[in-house]
Amino acid sequence: MNKESSGVMWRQQFLRHANLGLSLQAQVRQMVVGVVLEGQWPTSLAIPSSRELAEMLGLARNTVVIAYQHLVDEGYLIAYERRGYFSNPALMQQIKHPPRQAQDVDPSQRPDWAQRFRFDPAAQLNITKKANWRQYSYPFIYGQFDQESFPSAAWRACCMATLSTLEVSEWAQDMFLRDDEGLIKQLRLRVLPRRGVWVNDNELVITVGAQHALYLLADLLVSPNCVVGLEDPGYPDARNIFLSRTEQVQPLAIDDEGLILNEALLAQCDYVYVTPSHQSPTTVRMSLERKKELLVLAQKHDFIVIEDDYESENCLTNEASPSLKSLDHAGRVIYISSVSKVLAPGIRMGYVAADPILVQRLRAIRRLNIRHPTAYMQRVFAQFLSLGHYDVVLRKRAALLSEKATTLMQALDQYLPILKYQYISGGAACWVECPPQMKAHELAAAAEQRGVLIEVGDVFFVKNTENQHFFRLGFASIPNHKIEAGIRELSAVVRSLYGVEQEPSLQAV
Amino acid sequence: MNKESSGVMWRQQFLRHANLGLSLQAQVRQMVVGVVLEGQWPTSLAIPSSRELAEMLGLARNTVVIAYQHLVDEGYLIAYERRGYFSNPALMQQIKHPPRQAQDVDPSQRPDWAQRFRFDPAAQLNITKKANWRQYSYPFIYGQFDQESFPSAAWRACCMATLSTLEVSEWAQDMFLRDDEGLIKQLRLRVLPRRGVWVNDNELVITVGAQHALYLLADLLVSPNCVVGLEDPGYPDARNIFLSRTEQVQPLAIDDEGLILNEALLAQCDYVYVTPSHQSPTTVRMSLERKKELLVLAQKHDFIVIEDDYESENCLTNEASPSLKSLDHAGRVIYISSVSKVLAPGIRMGYVAADPILVQRLRAIRRLNIRHPTAYMQRVFAQFLSLGHYDVVLRKRAALLSEKATTLMQALDQYLPILKYQYISGGAACWVECPPQMKAHELAAAAEQRGVLIEVGDVFFVKNTENQHFFRLGFASIPNHKIEAGIRELSAVVRSLYGVEQEPSLQAV
Repeated sequence: MNKESSGVMWRQQFLRHANLGLSLQAQVRQMVVGVVLEGQWPTSLAIPSSRELAEMLGLARNTVVIAYQHLVDEGYLIAYERRGYFSNPALMQQIKHPPRQAQDVDPSQRPDWAQRFRFDPAAQLNITKKANWRQYSYPFIYGQFDQESFPSAAWRACCMATLSTLEVSEWAQDMFLRDDEGLIKQLRLRVLPRRGVWVNDNELVITVGAQHALYLLADLLVSPNCVVGLEDPGYPDARNIFLSRTEQVQPLAIDDEGLILNEALLAQCDYVYVTPSHQSPTTVRMSLERKKELLVLAQKHDFIVIEDDYESENCLTNEASPSLKSLDHAGRVIYISSVSKVLAPGIRMGYVAADPILVQRLRAIRRLNIRHPTAYMQRVFAQFLSLGHYDVVLRKRAALLSEKATTLMQALDQYLPILKYQYISGGAACWVECPPQMKAHELAAAAEQRGVLIEVGDVFFVKNTENQHFFRLGFASIPNHKIEAGIRELSAVVRSLYGVEQEPSLQAV
Repeated sequence: MNKESSGVMWRQQFLRHANLGLSLQAQVRQMVVGVVLEGQWPTSLAIPSSRELAEMLGLARNTVVIAYQHLVDEGYLIAYERRGYFSNPALMQQIKHPPRQAQDVDPSQRPDWAQRFRFDPAAQLNITKKANWRQYSYPFIYGQFDQESFPSAAWRACCMATLSTLEVSEWAQDMFLRDDEGLIKQLRLRVLPRRGVWVNDNELVITVGAQHALYLLADLLVSPNCVVGLEDPGYPDARNIFLSRTEQVQPLAIDDEGLILNEALLAQCDYVYVTPSHQSPTTVRMSLERKKELLVLAQKHDFIVIEDDYESENCLTNEASPSLKSLDHAGRVIYISSVSKVLAPGIRMGYVAADPILVQRLRAIRRLNIRHPTAYMQRVFAQFLSLGHYDVVLRKRAALLSEKATTLMQALDQYLPILKYQYISGGAACWVECPPQMKAHELAAAAEQRGVLIEVGDVFFVKNTENQHFFRLGFASIPNHKIEAGIRELSAVVRSLYGVEQEPSLQAV
């Protein structure tokens, strides 16, 4: 290969491996490893000298020298006096690929997978989110990452501290029987008490997010003959999880005080799943009276209450109302929550507080399922909590969200008075009901054309086809300054679709 | 509180929060946050000045000054001219705990949990490991962390790069529908080809370790009327996972060529779970002939083969034999493996390569289960692979393990010739059979008294009570220089228990 074509090849490779997250030295390493491993450079030929490569790529020579040196130390390259750097044949031997085989499958032999599925999870109705939501001007979506309130520096520091050799030897182990003591302590002493919940170590188990807790509970407790009561409208993934274990789900209606306590219906249930702190999706908070009454009924009719406190911390008024668990003296409430939701959904960290007998079984089935949640993340979180960063995030986020909630409600009053919405007392979304003539799907599709993303509400209902005029406006991910313009845009969409005439300035609010 | 008692209190608190993983400044922060949050300091009283605290704790004043400044910036503390630092009442308001409630449960009201469990995962037979195994001189245990071969620096660097703001905004999202493209690419181009497996993006799904893959497969595919064929002896967690879905598990015997292909038994199976690269626990490698024949039978009798390649990379001879998946042209093999096992079990990262139809359903049931594996870890791994660190670890570890394997087999030949062991061709454990008069439980208990940990083998058998004279010697976690002494110690235990007379020096090997 002549010098010119070689130069072109290396430059192309370098561009291919360009990665802003990495140092130039690391990028050089990544490129050389790639070229060598993928056999794009003859093993018989010396790779360019550090001087040559530095020139080709316009880098400081030292950058290349150090990258090469590491690769020599680790056996990728061998340096020969006056002959230069070569890929190490021993390594090539070890990593050489068997000849590529055609993996084409003979269709006639292909198994009939469809008839093998116990149930079809892909067919379940669910919330869909655009992966490219960031490219829309007004993403009123729920539960996505809110960069504004993420404490990057603090989080990074905790990750760093958790990467010390001492720490690594702790979390690198197979910890299938226990959770990180530090995290358990923080949850017991700092997090749960705010919800009025005081538990012992043997009453807590860590999960990969609140939803994971729900899945393990369903797998452990719900057999096909069980009846599970669910809020309607309610959290679709919860409904799907229970439907994967039993066909007998009992929809339970909601009003402004939360779950309506229909004793006849509740009496049939073995389990009742509720989101009392702010109901999903309406964000309605269950009244204290209802909470107490629900526990009485649970006792009377021997059902178990699963309390999903997924957004407890994210409360816009000053006093959070007590959790069901804090009122439970019969051990009938299984409390599940998430610590990562307020921080970043991608982190996935939740927990269950419940009867020790149940917690022991949950840990055992968790072992079957995933052995244990990555211990590294558990320790990072323990640290993050112990340094008080969590409290700072909560405060910052609560302030940010209540500001946004106010902006949103004002904008709705001003530009879309024809819509009914649930007053936002907490959470990060607004539940909206359109007049019967409007179809949320229609509206969402038209709005998307104008850069406004809203979440259609039918998926939250058991009878989704009969509930076509609801939608949800999430406001965690959209910046405050864009909310009003977004709602104005949405009102334009409404006018163009339904010709609802309204002069914003003349609107009585 | 007078200065002296206050000094004592702060010193005690500082000791309580001592943490080698943290900088002194962070430790001061942790202490102050703790004291303030847990209300151990009157809010009306100024906390010690930076000078006072520095003196009390014998720290550089600047350490305390900076810690205080951060806490002021974040609203924990308020600094008043000439009056000093006070805890911020607003924050205290936000985080104040409801009065501690007696969570005592009235036993008479406590639900009868036992009758609610669909099955009892805690009652399943399983491998047990001492959490304090490090405190034993000779821990011959399997699958624990091997500090020697863990590339701390490289791993830390990858974690760091993945914590850049740019990266964070990528992985912090709720990624329930997709996996990290970088990791998928690395697995497709760098990892799977070594096993002769070439797949497309839609044929791969990431899991929280190989076991997680197995659990999802069982939940998706195995109903109570399914028959699942399992190696016997075999991996207990796999057996437990399938037993949680069906009672019909079919034990399949093993010999020196791996799974014995009993067509009559295999014909009854809907699924056959195998560990061909080195069988768990015997480490026997399935012969190429048997692999091919198994696939023919799968086709003939319409069963699916689940290939657990959990330790494929960890092979002590030079040529790894091809995976079943690489020989499969009927799309009947579901390939599962782990990338984290060779690195650190605590990291938990695995994947499934299979038919796109199945992979789509696996991603959907994974969404129900945990939504998705922490995206942060996926990206760290993608980086770790792309920089070639993974290859370095594999080489280093393979060298280390084959060295240990040789030492172990020599020691067994010399000191315990009365034991039969399976020649170690790969993996990180040696499967040992005692003469009938020996009981592995007895031996393990006595050995533990002398600081030698061995793993009793009965748990690997379906009929565990009838297989009391097997045990396993793991050698990943014990350093090479301790192996011989450990085996000598074990032989002493054997002599003392069974009076087997043997002069090591006179032993013919």
